[in-house]
Amino acid sequence: MSSVDAKEQATKKRKIDEETTQQELKSFDGFTITKILNENASNKSIFVLGKFSKDEKCKEEENAVVILEKTPFSEETVGNLLSSKMELSLQMQNDIYGMFTGYPDKLLNGVKTTVIYPATERHIQKYTAQNVNLICESYEDYVNITLPYLQSQKFSLQWVYNILNKTSEADRIIFEDEDENNGFVLLPDMKWDKKQLENLYLIAICHRKDVMSLRDLNEKHLPLLKNIQEKCRIAVKEKFNVGPSQLRMYVHYQPSYYHFHVHVTHLKFEAPGIQVGRAYLLSDVIENIEMVANYYQKKSMTFSLRENDGLLTKFKEAGKLLQ
Amino acid sequence: MSSVDAKEQATKKRKIDEETTQQELKSFDGFTITKILNENASNKSIFVLGKFSKDEKCKEEENAVVILEKTPFSEETVGNLLSSKMELSLQMQNDIYGMFTGYPDKLLNGVKTTVIYPATERHIQKYTAQNVNLICESYEDYVNITLPYLQSQKFSLQWVYNILNKTSEADRIIFEDEDENNGFVLLPDMKWDKKQLENLYLIAICHRKDVMSLRDLNEKHLPLLKNIQEKCRIAVKEKFNVGPSQLRMYVHYQPSYYHFHVHVTHLKFEAPGIQVGRAYLLSDVIENIEMVANYYQKKSMTFSLRENDGLLTKFKEAGKLLQ
Repeated sequence: MSSVDAKEQATKKRKIDEETTQQELKSFDGFTITKILNENASNKSIFVLGKFSKDEKCKEEENAVVILEKTPFSEETVGNLLSSKMELSLQMQNDIYGMFTGYPDKLLNGVKTTVIYPATERHIQKYTAQNVNLICESYEDYVNITLPYLQSQKFSLQWVYNILNKTSEADRIIFEDEDENNGFVLLPDMKWDKKQLENLYLIAICHRKDVMSLRDLNEKHLPLLKNIQEKCRIAVKEKFNVGPSQLRMYVHYQPSYYHFHVHVTHLKFEAPGIQVGRAYLLSDVIENIEMVANYYQKKSMTFSLRENDGLLTKFKEAGKLLQ
Repeated sequence: MSSVDAKEQATKKRKIDEETTQQELKSFDGFTITKILNENASNKSIFVLGKFSKDEKCKEEENAVVILEKTPFSEETVGNLLSSKMELSLQMQNDIYGMFTGYPDKLLNGVKTTVIYPATERHIQKYTAQNVNLICESYEDYVNITLPYLQSQKFSLQWVYNILNKTSEADRIIFEDEDENNGFVLLPDMKWDKKQLENLYLIAICHRKDVMSLRDLNEKHLPLLKNIQEKCRIAVKEKFNVGPSQLRMYVHYQPSYYHFHVHVTHLKFEAPGIQVGRAYLLSDVIENIEMVANYYQKKSMTFSLRENDGLLTKFKEAGKLLQ
């Protein structure tokens, strides 16, 4: 599609959108909840499926997904919050400890509200709570189940190669070691806003293309792993003044893409995916291989898979669920 | 102190409290912020140090610590929230995706508010953000630094022994294997409200008293570890109908007390302390020892220590910080 075509298409689409969707949404007047898809008590969010039934423009069959998430407090606004306008309702008092429900000024207590409307079945699936299952994958299971599954999926790694050969994101690169065996590119993860150092999140992507994951690593890769560890520490110290004792360097298994990469985050940052059964410290990987050269071709790996993950189906078919 | 004495003392103390503290706190009228002690953007909380300066009863030097935390959404109340009363202010619109700030009815959007007043220096310390440091402890470091430090601290384990010999919490025990070598007691962790299965959090505490932590484990302990793994799985399935593929069983290093115990949580529960560099899956511990009998007497262990941790001071003194 030429760029002119694309523009025309976009304009046409926008017109349709304006006619049928949420341009005039000012409140949730007439909104009825069909189902709570998911909720998260720790980050204070909820995912709701419903319909704007009173809206004349709304077709009966059109679903809306509404995501509500409470917003963080900020140093700037908390001063306005803690004022005579914040009424307190006592819940419990014990000695010097008082527990209240506080009711801040409405305008200071907004909720991040995302409306997807009309929402497709895929949106609904995406935001619906799913069971997770713990899988214990022996190396034999990796060879017989996981690897064939990954190969059948033909996940494209083109976006990774675009980074490595500077077709994309070249301006984002923080550090590079160009060595074809042990070299890598270091750049910010999409999840990092590049503002707060305490959320620092970088990714080191190795240049060589023959390491899919932890499962491929052996003593031959020690120079690669140590090179990434050492040079990332130096680069992060130089660029961000964050030292090695403030850095968490780890890999995922299963990873989200199968070209070897290392996550580099600030130790204070509770990044998603740092939990046991998903994250493996780079220093532990190096030491395990030093202790047992084929450690990652011997060790069972334990990880969680969501109910709709194709790999889970394969483990189920092979009768390999934990009983 | 007799029980009568204690009651009198408590009454006297309550009177003093009522005179000097927060009994009439209805709002934050006159509150001035001295300092933001800490904030947590992921669970939406903030810790503030300040004074109620306009309060005549308040002495100039008396500090208050105020903790604000946004509350989770609930299935019960979200229907009231998503109504005509919730005004929407558009932030961004792209195709079917609309991002708004929503302003719910004030009374439906309370904030959990804890006031500690007057607050002592210890309270202020407790709620102040602290730097954390990553420590890489070799087994030699464990023997020369960590173990002597732990022994010098003489942490009391009496509360653990009270559980094991049924002096305390006997009614909370979910399962017990009384074997003196391989047996253990399984009971709910204090953090679990025993209501929601998805937050299930149990602790298995072994009967034998000679295992301080992971560092002590070797091939002789495999029967203990496997017994805990197997019988916890059966007990949790029987009592709660939560199967092995929904369970996360792990130990902490460093643990919060040095009598060997295993955490048993629902896989869906993002319990505090499940991150890499703190949590070790029981199944991995067993397999590592099967692979290398003295694995935990060979392996470096990586963990974080807060700035005010006495053990960090010992590692600093020994020149063992990551540089």
